Amino acid sequence: MGGPIKTLGKPQRDHGGRIDASRAIYGGDVNDWLDLSTGINPRPYPVSGFPARDWTALPDHNAQTRLLKAARRFWQVPETADILAAPGASALIARIPALAPTGRVRIPQPTYNEHAAAFAAQGWEVTDAGPADAQVVVHPNNPDGRLWAADNFDTPLTIIDESFCDVTPGQTLVNLADRPGTVILKSFGKFWGLAGLRLGFAIARPEVIARLSDLTGPWAVSGPALRIGANALENPAWADDTRKRLASDAARLDRLMTGSGAEIAGGTDLFRLYKVDDAAKWQDRLARSYIWTRIFPYSPHFLRLGLPDGDGWAQLQDAL
Amino acid sequence: MGGPIKTLGKPQRDHGGRIDASRAIYGGDVNDWLDLSTGINPRPYPVSGFPARDWTALPDHNAQTRLLKAARRFWQVPETADILAAPGASALIARIPALAPTGRVRIPQPTYNEHAAAFAAQGWEVTDAGPADAQVVVHPNNPDGRLWAADNFDTPLTIIDESFCDVTPGQTLVNLADRPGTVILKSFGKFWGLAGLRLGFAIARPEVIARLSDLTGPWAVSGPALRIGANALENPAWADDTRKRLASDAARLDRLMTGSGAEIAGGTDLFRLYKVDDAAKWQDRLARSYIWTRIFPYSPHFLRLGLPDGDGWAQLQDAL
Repeated sequence: MGGPIKTLGKPQRDHGGRIDASRAIYGGDVNDWLDLSTGINPRPYPVSGFPARDWTALPDHNAQTRLLKAARRFWQVPETADILAAPGASALIARIPALAPTGRVRIPQPTYNEHAAAFAAQGWEVTDAGPADAQVVVHPNNPDGRLWAADNFDTPLTIIDESFCDVTPGQTLVNLADRPGTVILKSFGKFWGLAGLRLGFAIARPEVIARLSDLTGPWAVSGPALRIGANALENPAWADDTRKRLASDAARLDRLMTGSGAEIAGGTDLFRLYKVDDAAKWQDRLARSYIWTRIFPYSPHFLRLGLPDGDGWAQLQDAL
Repeated sequence: MGGPIKTLGKPQRDHGGRIDASRAIYGGDVNDWLDLSTGINPRPYPVSGFPARDWTALPDHNAQTRLLKAARRFWQVPETADILAAPGASALIARIPALAPTGRVRIPQPTYNEHAAAFAAQGWEVTDAGPADAQVVVHPNNPDGRLWAADNFDTPLTIIDESFCDVTPGQTLVNLADRPGTVILKSFGKFWGLAGLRLGFAIARPEVIARLSDLTGPWAVSGPALRIGANALENPAWADDTRKRLASDAARLDRLMTGSGAEIAGGTDLFRLYKVDDAAKWQDRLARSYIWTRIFPYSPHFLRLGLPDGDGWAQLQDAL
C-alpha cells in the first residue's frame, strides 16, 4: 500500500520558487542558486530577535490589534471596511470561494493560478470572460502588470488581489473595499521580502470579513508574524526607500535583459516580464549558471525574472 | 461610522490565554503574570536560530517533506493514511465542517468550544448526544481528560482531536486514521510549548487529506515552523524526558491544590482540572497575585490550571 507523503497544500501547480526541483536537474548547492523565479523582494524587511513569548504563547489579542491598526493606516483602509490577517494571502484565496453559492467565476487569463484552482476545487465553473457570479483580478496582474479599474467590476463577488500593488500604492483600489461583495487582498511576503513568514490580509465590508474570519479560525497568525508585520507596516520610511530601490533595480534589469535581446512585455517593480524567442531555452541556459527563472505553460515566449541583489547582478550578467 | 477593528479570527469565545484582558482588570506587567489558564507546556522545545531563507523564501518542498516524514514516524501514522500540516490545529478545525454536506454534528459536552463554533458557523446543527452525521471528540478531553474508544464512533464523519494526547501516546487512536471519514488532529503548540509558532496536523485517508489540503491552500506553514517542527519530531528523547517531567509536575500541582482544599476532577499532564466551592472566587484570589487560571461558563466549580515552571511554583504556593 503506502500512501504518498502529502506535501503541505500540495504545491503541484506551476509556480516559481521551486529551487529544490531545479537543483535535482542542474545540481549545485542551494546557496549557489540565484532564485529569480518569484516576485519576492530580495532585500527583505529586517527580522530582529523575538521575545520568547512570541513563540510560546498563543498569539496575543493586543499584538493582533496593533498589527491591524498598522495595516489600516498603511493601506488607508476605508473606515467602513474591516480587515483580517491570515497566514498568507494563499490561506485567504483557498477560503474565498466559500463566500458565495457555487456558480461561475470569471478570471481573466493569464494570471496567478491559485485563484482558479481554489474556485474549481470548490465546485465553481471557471471562465476567462463573459457573464459571471464572481470575478478575480490580480492588480497589478502577474505576470504582465495589467491594471484594472472600478468600472471593470460587475459581479456580486469581486476579488481584487493587490499582492503586488505595494510598489505602486497610487494604483490601489482599496477605496472599493466598502462595496458589497468586494474583497481586497494584500500580501506581506512579496514587497517586504518575507514569504516564509506567512502573512496576508483581506479587506472588505464587516459581514464579509466576519465570514472569512469564521472560515480561518482563531490565532491564525504566528506570534513572530504579528510582531514583524506590525513593525514593518509602522515603518513607511522603509517602504518609501524600498520602492525607490526596486524601481531603480527593475530599470537596471530591463537594461541588462534588453541588451541581451529580450523585449519588455510588462511586469511590476518586483518582477519583470520579457518576450524572448524561446523561453524554455533561456531558462535552461540561465539554470546552467544556477539562476532560476519563470516560464509559463501557456506561452513559449514569456520569461519572468525577479530582481537580483548584491552579487546576483554579476552572476546574471555573466550568464547572459 | 468607523467599523470595528477585527481581531484575527475573532477569539471572542471563552478561552484561556487572555493575559491582556486580565491585566486590564488586575494590573501588573505582562512579565509579572503567571499564566496557568492554558494547557501549554511551560518549558518549550528550544527555538534556535534560523537561516534567513526560512523567513524570506516560500516554504520549501523539501522542508515540507522532511516535516511530514518526521511526523509520520513520531505518531506512527498508518501507511494507508496521509498527513497534512497546517498553521495550527485551529486552522484545520475551521475547515473540517466543509468536508461533508451540512447536517447534525454530535459534540459531547463539556469540551473545547472551537469545534462547535466552526460547525455552527458553517450551518450545521450542533447536538450533545443522539444520532448524527458527524461527531467530534477531544481525546483526551479538555478539560476533564475523558478518553474515548473505537466503538464510540458511529458517524460517517468522525473527528478525533488528539491535541493533548502527546503526554499519553499509548492512548492514541491514530490507528483509526485509515477508516473512511475519520480525521485525527494533532497540535504542536501544546506538548512542545510553542503555541505562537502555529503548527498542527490532520491525519486521514488520502481523499480526505486532499480535500482538506485544497481548503488550506499552498505554503500553509511558515519556514520557521517547518524547521522547528521537524527538529522536534525527530527528537523522541526530548519527548520522553518531557513526558516524565510533565507527569511529575502534574502530581506536584495536585498535591499543592488538594492541600489547599481543591478536589481533583480530571485533566491530563498538561493541565489539571479541580473542583472547588466557588471557582470564580478562586480565580479572583489567584489573579490578585497575578496568576491567571481558567474557569468555565458551564460550571461554578471547575477550575483548570496549567503547570507552573521555575519561580512559578513559589508564586503559586504563596498565593494559595
